[in-house]
Amino acid sequence: MHETPRGGRLHIALFGRRNAGKSSLINALTGQELAIVSPVAGTTTDPVYKAMEILPIGPVMFIDTAGLDDEGELGEKRVAKSLAVLAKADLVLLVVDPQQNPGEVERTLIEAAGQRQLPVVGVLNKIDLLPETAAVNFPLPDIPWVKVSARTGRGISQLKQTMVQLAPKDWTAPTIAGDLVPPGELALLVVPIDLAAPKGRLILPQVQTIRDMLDHDCLTMVVKERELKAAFNSLQKPPALVITDSQAFLKVDADTPPGVPLTSFSILFARYKGDLATLVAGAVAVEDLQPGDRVLIAEACTHHRVADDIGTVKIPRWLRQIVGGELQFEWSSGIELPAHLEQYRLIVHCGACMTNRREMLSRIMTAQAAGVPMVNYGVLIAYVHGILRRALAPFPDVLALLDENEVI
Amino acid sequence: MHETPRGGRLHIALFGRRNAGKSSLINALTGQELAIVSPVAGTTTDPVYKAMEILPIGPVMFIDTAGLDDEGELGEKRVAKSLAVLAKADLVLLVVDPQQNPGEVERTLIEAAGQRQLPVVGVLNKIDLLPETAAVNFPLPDIPWVKVSARTGRGISQLKQTMVQLAPKDWTAPTIAGDLVPPGELALLVVPIDLAAPKGRLILPQVQTIRDMLDHDCLTMVVKERELKAAFNSLQKPPALVITDSQAFLKVDADTPPGVPLTSFSILFARYKGDLATLVAGAVAVEDLQPGDRVLIAEACTHHRVADDIGTVKIPRWLRQIVGGELQFEWSSGIELPAHLEQYRLIVHCGACMTNRREMLSRIMTAQAAGVPMVNYGVLIAYVHGILRRALAPFPDVLALLDENEVI
Repeated sequence: MHETPRGGRLHIALFGRRNAGKSSLINALTGQELAIVSPVAGTTTDPVYKAMEILPIGPVMFIDTAGLDDEGELGEKRVAKSLAVLAKADLVLLVVDPQQNPGEVERTLIEAAGQRQLPVVGVLNKIDLLPETAAVNFPLPDIPWVKVSARTGRGISQLKQTMVQLAPKDWTAPTIAGDLVPPGELALLVVPIDLAAPKGRLILPQVQTIRDMLDHDCLTMVVKERELKAAFNSLQKPPALVITDSQAFLKVDADTPPGVPLTSFSILFARYKGDLATLVAGAVAVEDLQPGDRVLIAEACTHHRVADDIGTVKIPRWLRQIVGGELQFEWSSGIELPAHLEQYRLIVHCGACMTNRREMLSRIMTAQAAGVPMVNYGVLIAYVHGILRRALAPFPDVLALLDENEVI
Repeated sequence: MHETPRGGRLHIALFGRRNAGKSSLINALTGQELAIVSPVAGTTTDPVYKAMEILPIGPVMFIDTAGLDDEGELGEKRVAKSLAVLAKADLVLLVVDPQQNPGEVERTLIEAAGQRQLPVVGVLNKIDLLPETAAVNFPLPDIPWVKVSARTGRGISQLKQTMVQLAPKDWTAPTIAGDLVPPGELALLVVPIDLAAPKGRLILPQVQTIRDMLDHDCLTMVVKERELKAAFNSLQKPPALVITDSQAFLKVDADTPPGVPLTSFSILFARYKGDLATLVAGAVAVEDLQPGDRVLIAEACTHHRVADDIGTVKIPRWLRQIVGGELQFEWSSGIELPAHLEQYRLIVHCGACMTNRREMLSRIMTAQAAGVPMVNYGVLIAYVHGILRRALAPFPDVLALLDENEVI
C-alpha cells in the first residue's frame, strides 16, 4: 500500500475537553460506529490516526487527541502530545460541550493553531441538550462556530460545509487514478490531437494523470486513438486501465477488449475535483426532468464562448432531446452559485478546470443543502453518449447508483 | 514520410530578377550543387519547393520563384504565381544583382511582403564583381541588406545570421524526436520524480516530447527509472528509442540493452533549440582548454541561484577537474552575449529553457563568427558524465565528431 500524500487526504485534528464528544462527532461525520464512545471521561489517550471517508468530502485522516483538560503529570504530557499534532493537521475541529464552560484550555488551543495559521472550526456539540433559544457567547478568540448534535445528526451537514470552506486551497483528492492501477502495472492513456489541443503541449488533466501514475509507481502509455490497436499489440498483457478523452470514447470503447477497464479523463476528474457519486446521481436525475423544468447551467469562470459552446448550445440541446420538450435554462458564472437554488430541478456544473476541489465540493454541498441534484459536464457527456456505464466500471459503488435507478 | 509542419521547417521564399543568382545563392547557403545554375536568364519557371538543410540553421524549405522581370503573357502569370508564394513563406530573400539597377519590380515585392508583415532580407549578390568601395544606394523601402558573393561564399555567414534574426519568433525545429521513432513504434521516456519536479506536473520538455511523439503517430511510454525494467518486460519488443533525464542516465544506461538506442532530453533539446553539431563540437573543445584560459558562462535569463547552482558551482568545478588547473570564469546573463567574445576559449551556454530557437541559433552564430566554440549545459553534462557517446548514438553525423577528435 502507498502512503497517501498528506496533500491528498485532508488531515483533521480533533481537540476538546474530555467527554466533549470528539469520538461521537467522528461517527456522526462518517456515518460509522468505529470509535470507542464512552461516557467515562478520557477514553482517548495518545493521538490516534484514523483514515476514514466523509461523504461527499472524500478520504480524510482524523487525528483524535486526548482531552485538553487531562489531569496530572501523565495528563500534561498527553496535552503536549496533542498540541504537537497541529504540525500534521490541515484543519482543526475544536469540540465544545456548552455545559463545560469553555475558557482557558480552548483559548490555548485556538492561539496555538493561530500561530500556525491553521483554520479552527468551533463545534458546539450536544445542542440537543440545550434549550432552543440558548445564547452561545464564549470569552474566546473569534472563530466560526457550528452548532451540532453528534447524537441526532443535527448540524452535521452545515459542519461539513464549513470544514470544506476552511480546507487548504491546494487540497486535492489523494489520487487521480493511482488507486485503480497496481504498482508496476500499466495505464493506457488515449489522447486525441485535434485543433483544440494546445500547440506543442498536452492539456493539464492529461499531464496531471501521467504524473499521478508516476507517483504511484505505475507505467503509462500515451497514444492517439488511431494508434490504440498498435498499443494493445505492443504489450505482453492488457493494461490495468484505459483512460480516454471523452470525445474518442466510442472508438476506444470499440477497440478495447471487454475485460479491460475503461474510463474517461472527465470521470476521473469529476471524482478528483468533486464527488463522483453526487455527480452521477445528478445524471440519474436527468431521467426525472419534465418539460418546463428549470435547469441551471453553472460555470465557475467566465470564458470566451465559441459558436458551438458546450454550456450554451450542446447541453441544452441534449437535455431537450432527452426530455422531449422545452426546458427553462438559466446560466450563472462566477465564484458563487445564485440564491434560491431550490427553484431548479437540476444543476449542470462546468468541468471546474480552473477551480480547486475545495470550491467544487463547496458548490456540491450547497446544491445538496438546497435539495437540487448536480451533474457536471464530464459526467453528463458520458451519460448522453451512452458510455457512462462502461466508464464507471472501475467504480462499483458509483455504478450501483445506475443499477438502483435502472439507468442504461 | 510525414509532412513537416510549416512551423518547424523555416520557409524561405527567394525573389529577384532573372539571373540575379537565386539558385546559386541556395547552393552557397546549403553548400550543395543541386539547383540548376545557368547564365541563361529565366531558368527557374514555376515556384519550386526544395527541402534542404542549412548549417547551423537546420531544415528549411526554399521556395525558388520565377524571375520577377519575366516578360510576356506567360511571364506575367509566372510573376503572379511567384507573389502568391508569399502566403507560404516565413521569410523572404530578395536577391539583387547591383548591375541590374533595382527599382519597380523590387519595390513591388517589398511592398507585397510588407502587407503580409513578412520580413525581407535584401541580398546584394555578385559583390565580387563590384569595386570594393562601390556605394550601394537604391530608391527602395528600407530593408536590411547583406552583401554576398554566392560564387566565393563571401558574406554568406552574415546572411545566415540576418536570416535567423528575422525568422518568426515561434519558429521551432521540425521535431524533437519524431524523426528517430518510426510511426507506430514506441519511445520509452524515463522521468525521475525528485524534489525538483513541479508538484503534480511534468516539466515542459517532457510534455513537449510526449506531444511530439503523438504528432508523429508514435506510442510513448512514461516511467520512473525504478520501473524501467518492468517497462521493458511489459513490451513485446524493445522500444525504438529510450529518452531519459540526464540525472538518471547511468542507471538507465545500465538497464537498457546495448542494442536499444538511448539518448537524453538534454541532447534532444540541444538539437531542437539550437544546433547539436555545434554544441558537441563545443564539448570536444573542452579537451583543448588549458589552465588560465577564459571561459564564459552565458545564461539567457537571470534566475534565482540555488546553493549548488549548475552555472556558478558545478560547471566551474567539472571544468577545473578536466583541465587540472584554474580557469578564468566570467558570467553573463540577458539577451545579448557580451562584446569581445574572441577573448574566451569556450562559451558554456544555459539550456535555453526560456529562450526560443531563433535566439539560441543567433547566439551560436555570433560565437561562430568570433571563432569561439560553444557548448550548452545539457551537452556538457553528458560529456563530463561520460555518457555523451551513447547519448549521441541516434545521431551518427554528430557522433562522428567525437570519433574524429578521439573523444571517449
